Amino acid sequence: MTSNAVPDIVVGRLPIYLRVLNHLIAEGRQITSSQELGDRLGISSAQIRKDLSHFGEFGKQGTGYNVAYLRDQLTEILNVDREWRMVLIGAGDLGHALVHYHRFAEHGFQIAAVFDNDADKIGHKLGEYDVHSIDDLENLVRLHQVEMAIIAVPVAAARDVATRLINLGIKAILCYAPVTLTVPLGVQVQYIDPVAQLQHMAYYQTVEAR
Amino acid sequence: MTSNAVPDIVVGRLPIYLRVLNHLIAEGRQITSSQELGDRLGISSAQIRKDLSHFGEFGKQGTGYNVAYLRDQLTEILNVDREWRMVLIGAGDLGHALVHYHRFAEHGFQIAAVFDNDADKIGHKLGEYDVHSIDDLENLVRLHQVEMAIIAVPVAAARDVATRLINLGIKAILCYAPVTLTVPLGVQVQYIDPVAQLQHMAYYQTVEAR
Repeated sequence: MTSNAVPDIVVGRLPIYLRVLNHLIAEGRQITSSQELGDRLGISSAQIRKDLSHFGEFGKQGTGYNVAYLRDQLTEILNVDREWRMVLIGAGDLGHALVHYHRFAEHGFQIAAVFDNDADKIGHKLGEYDVHSIDDLENLVRLHQVEMAIIAVPVAAARDVATRLINLGIKAILCYAPVTLTVPLGVQVQYIDPVAQLQHMAYYQTVEAR
Repeated sequence: MTSNAVPDIVVGRLPIYLRVLNHLIAEGRQITSSQELGDRLGISSAQIRKDLSHFGEFGKQGTGYNVAYLRDQLTEILNVDREWRMVLIGAGDLGHALVHYHRFAEHGFQIAAVFDNDADKIGHKLGEYDVHSIDDLENLVRLHQVEMAIIAVPVAAARDVATRLINLGIKAILCYAPVTLTVPLGVQVQYIDPVAQLQHMAYYQTVEAR
């Protein structure tokens, strides 16, 4: 990362902008504005203009943004104008939901192989996937040139799985286990913890009721 | 909310602190420090002290934090020292995973009822739950005194479902549909969008490979 790197919080908003632009395209829209994007997202139009200004000039004062052009530019900036291959570790209920989650493939994120350490699951199907032994992780990550991983195993196993993935050169991990992983510089981890998000909202519930 | 409200980003870190404290308790630990918490979370110890200082004095200089006491205090601050009843809207693959996700109940978030609009699902079981018609939403939310909701329906249905929930007085919504909801002041929404998180990480992948 260079010293004039874009703030991570800005990078994190780009996928949301991309999502809205795709919705606008689906609605047949050709032109939009920072005002409209902001209204749809609950973000100020100034914030949106400032965020986008990190990456170039995408609109003209008074004429707004060309929806398809901005969508294409953001797709390129996010490096999602290509396919990413992922492994999924964990073939439990969560893994089951994830292999059936069509949005991954729709957005270019392909699950290449599924793994578990449970002998009752290995060799069986999870959706359209064969469940492989975690012992085959190294071979299959290399075979399929996998670059990303989804961890959907219990907390007790998550750190070991992450270490193995990182040792294989995986640099992007989506972690559903409720842990915080310690990872080397250059490795990205994003967490999904619905309980933490419910607790976050619970804070405001009683504040208001008081 | 008062004018000296705690920044939302600080509130959002409290569940993560709570998670680490629970892990420490499970390890049999009695005392911890902002340094140790920071190391486990990849956050500076100064940040942790500053975050906690919004809520009071929880440790003494040089002696650290009593783990159980800090855990109990954060539990109370977050209003999660009680049970919250939720409805789950959407009995698809994601809904299936969510009713099997034990961490909700373990942390006091009880799914009271499950709904769908698909005649093939209504009246059938999803895990231990009966799937109710969405037409029964109003009655059952009132009957079970539900205060939170999980939206696990397709994008096309998400806004209408959210509107009905908000009209019923639900003030906390965990939304798995890839939309941004427009909600009145006082209603909290948290989003789970794994595709957005993968795209966020993809940004850094090629930056490094360049």
